[in-house]
Amino acid sequence: MPQARFFEIAARDGAARQGRMHTPSGVVETPAFAPVATFGAVRGVAPDELRAAGAQILLANTYHLHERPGEAVIEAQGGLHGFTGWRGPWLTDSGGFQVTSMADRLVVDEDGVTFASPLDGRRRLLTPELAIAVQEALGADIAMTLDECRAPAYGDPPDAEPAGGAASLRVRAATERTLRWAARCRAARRRRATALFGIVQGGLSEALRRESARATAALGFDGYAHGGLGLGENAARRLDLVAATHAELPELLPRYLMGIGPPEEILDAVAAGVDLFDCVIPTRHGRHGVLFTSRGSLKLRNARFRDDGAPPDPDCDCSTCAQHSCAYLHHLLRVNEVLGARLASVHNLRFVLRLLEDARRAIAAGRFDAFRRSVF
Amino acid sequence: MPQARFFEIAARDGAARQGRMHTPSGVVETPAFAPVATFGAVRGVAPDELRAAGAQILLANTYHLHERPGEAVIEAQGGLHGFTGWRGPWLTDSGGFQVTSMADRLVVDEDGVTFASPLDGRRRLLTPELAIAVQEALGADIAMTLDECRAPAYGDPPDAEPAGGAASLRVRAATERTLRWAARCRAARRRRATALFGIVQGGLSEALRRESARATAALGFDGYAHGGLGLGENAARRLDLVAATHAELPELLPRYLMGIGPPEEILDAVAAGVDLFDCVIPTRHGRHGVLFTSRGSLKLRNARFRDDGAPPDPDCDCSTCAQHSCAYLHHLLRVNEVLGARLASVHNLRFVLRLLEDARRAIAAGRFDAFRRSVF
Repeated sequence: MPQARFFEIAARDGAARQGRMHTPSGVVETPAFAPVATFGAVRGVAPDELRAAGAQILLANTYHLHERPGEAVIEAQGGLHGFTGWRGPWLTDSGGFQVTSMADRLVVDEDGVTFASPLDGRRRLLTPELAIAVQEALGADIAMTLDECRAPAYGDPPDAEPAGGAASLRVRAATERTLRWAARCRAARRRRATALFGIVQGGLSEALRRESARATAALGFDGYAHGGLGLGENAARRLDLVAATHAELPELLPRYLMGIGPPEEILDAVAAGVDLFDCVIPTRHGRHGVLFTSRGSLKLRNARFRDDGAPPDPDCDCSTCAQHSCAYLHHLLRVNEVLGARLASVHNLRFVLRLLEDARRAIAAGRFDAFRRSVF
Repeated sequence: MPQARFFEIAARDGAARQGRMHTPSGVVETPAFAPVATFGAVRGVAPDELRAAGAQILLANTYHLHERPGEAVIEAQGGLHGFTGWRGPWLTDSGGFQVTSMADRLVVDEDGVTFASPLDGRRRLLTPELAIAVQEALGADIAMTLDECRAPAYGDPPDAEPAGGAASLRVRAATERTLRWAARCRAARRRRATALFGIVQGGLSEALRRESARATAALGFDGYAHGGLGLGENAARRLDLVAATHAELPELLPRYLMGIGPPEEILDAVAAGVDLFDCVIPTRHGRHGVLFTSRGSLKLRNARFRDDGAPPDPDCDCSTCAQHSCAYLHHLLRVNEVLGARLASVHNLRFVLRLLEDARRAIAAGRFDAFRRSVF
């Protein structure tokens, strides 16, 4: 385990940490946000724009890239770095999230996940071993173990479930299988340059998540992720679970909260000690014309922006706000001109990435709590 | 007429000319190509990318912007320049092309063109006077007269029609009406900063086009356009018509061939003395994965590009070729990721814009013919 080298904590402020992940493709200052590049591209946004917006690391989707173009194609082009032109660090998910997002198109058994591809109808079996092989072929700087990600809503106790309450049999079974798969993923590693993170499951049960965290940590990974959250549960409840789980994870290794993007929720999780985030929200909201700003969210398709010559956020240093007005973005979004989605996505990404830059500075200065209260 | 100031010819090579249009928003070196920004944006491509690709002037669509967001909105934001962030010269068409492209949704009479909007079903009457008022409100550097643009294919003599042959009654009537509208457009001018170009019609009849050119020139405009071409006619025939028409137009004023984009056809028209072009082809082809290169067109969606790590054109200096491979573009186009369309559009625009840069240098050096033969 290259733990000491891979991650270092430079400053602490309460439970929040400011640190660095050292990957073969560069340093990631934490807490960090990874824009989502499902197919190896952030929708409509080019690598140089991502760099200019402050992105340090991108997240690609293992399952989708395994289907198209296939990891062999990408490996032959120098991995995701050479293939996409994003030469900075790459994080890859394992395909586990597709267990939730494509739930009606797959069967899970002990071997792995069998997908009926929506593309060609062919069946594809994703095993823990294959998930690692694909991620290594993609040249991931950080890979994830294959997990069985089950939305807690499926027959699980409600959000209000007391800490330590019983999880449904289904969530318990998925959590235990995730642990067995984690061990298989660990054994399947071949490429030393790729760090591997384990994933904690356990639905909304604190007891089960603690148990999952303890057992996953016992296997030994380069970092740990909270899986199966961000699926509709109460944000306060999620935060409690995250904090409780941290007590069971190695203090000195990075913690990754998967799939959480709303700016307030990111800062709350940073306060709880999370080091890494990813989410489609900045780009998805951008495509729909919803822009994060220092004064709250703006729905730029609304008629009130038709004649608004101001930039979306006068306090923003992004390339969109430097050059374009609400009126222009409103128009582009209304006529479905793709440049509108792109400019809005760049703004939202910069907003979230700057938020984390500011958070890192605030933690280093020991004033994170005041910063967090000042933002919203 | 600010003729002498608006346009100057710096060099000639045969019938080809190398010159400059002086607009309030900057100089346009000619022969020039105007990328098409129908709704005030080149699909998916930002102003700074257009500048980097060598664009000097953009073309916006009067009819579509009149509908959405309306010229008053744009005028209040500082015209197209302030509204879109493209601060260089803007060319606007008059809406006349929609007489062809939306032929089943309009009625033309002496007043003007009544459109049944596909947007809201409302009827909108575009008169010559309104076409000028809209273009002036948009802050156009170069505006076009309203013409009745009729595809020659509609009942016209075939391409092989001998020079001077008779045009159909319909094309003759449209040509004569275009002339009456040109006079009304000229009388409707209010804004001195906007240059106004007249449009020659006449279908595929050389006699009628010459007659139209003579009469339009007699009215007096800042430049002249060939209208109603690029609608499927034989390219050699078109070139003959263009050359014949030039004999009837003021030698010292710019000539604009509307809607022609294939690189070979652009160079042929430059040889015949055309100074200005626009076309959707570079961006439309880009969206469909067809890329212009120094070795001919590439269809990047084809399977043979799946593993091709070379840039689309090793001789190209565009940002796409500098950073991305055929394999990556192939993948993006196949998964319908919009970044693919954008990167391909930027490449095609750069290809055409560089072609005209090279053409200008070749004309200035008196070696245009050799250059043209060397290109294809």
